[in-house]
Amino acid sequence: MADEKHRGDDGVGATVFIGLKPTMTYVFQVVTQLNSGAGPVVVKARGNAIAKAVDVVEVVRHRFLEGQVELGPIAIATERLVNRDGREANVSSIAIPLTRTGPLPAPPAEGTGRPPSAG
Amino acid sequence: MADEKHRGDDGVGATVFIGLKPTMTYVFQVVTQLNSGAGPVVVKARGNAIAKAVDVVEVVRHRFLEGQVELGPIAIATERLVNRDGREANVSSIAIPLTRTGPLPAPPAEGTGRPPSAG
Repeated sequence: MADEKHRGDDGVGATVFIGLKPTMTYVFQVVTQLNSGAGPVVVKARGNAIAKAVDVVEVVRHRFLEGQVELGPIAIATERLVNRDGREANVSSIAIPLTRTGPLPAPPAEGTGRPPSAG
Repeated sequence: MADEKHRGDDGVGATVFIGLKPTMTYVFQVVTQLNSGAGPVVVKARGNAIAKAVDVVEVVRHRFLEGQVELGPIAIATERLVNRDGREANVSSIAIPLTRTGPLPAPPAEGTGRPPSAG
């Protein structure tokens, strides 16, 4: 649940939820989404995963897509969750929007059936 | 080092660095700074303390100074630090500016020597 990726209902943009997987797993998800050209990608996290969300965004924009992404306004909020033992608890959350500004990588040649080589 | 509070060189505003102390310790520091009317307060954190920084800001603006603070544009960055064993490492950081928008609490009456009552 804290670890999914889906496309917005409006068909533009996607959300990547940061969970317990390694940082680089989410970095590749975000880069793939941004390279697909579908629009902005919002990196979201709750609680302790917030620090990892910032790591993911920093790696994406400084190591993989340097000079090709723009950081949207970062939003923080408080969500009210129900614990496993049924009690309510407040948990902080963060949403970091990323938009591609540089040109998209070339699409794969038709008919080869192979994914584009990683740049 | 990761746990200090100081006033900017220009005399306006202050920075609260989030470290290993309990969340509420930093919440009170931030509220005190904002109530002193000295200008914006920037909550800063690195690495895993980033999640705690967001908690601090959320508690300040929703529980202690509801409707009385404005969140500035949140900035994230990567800092290059030298480990204890002399190696360089990248660490993510966050800076969250808070500005008081509501009226300041009344100053303590002169000569009583008592702090203003909380709340």
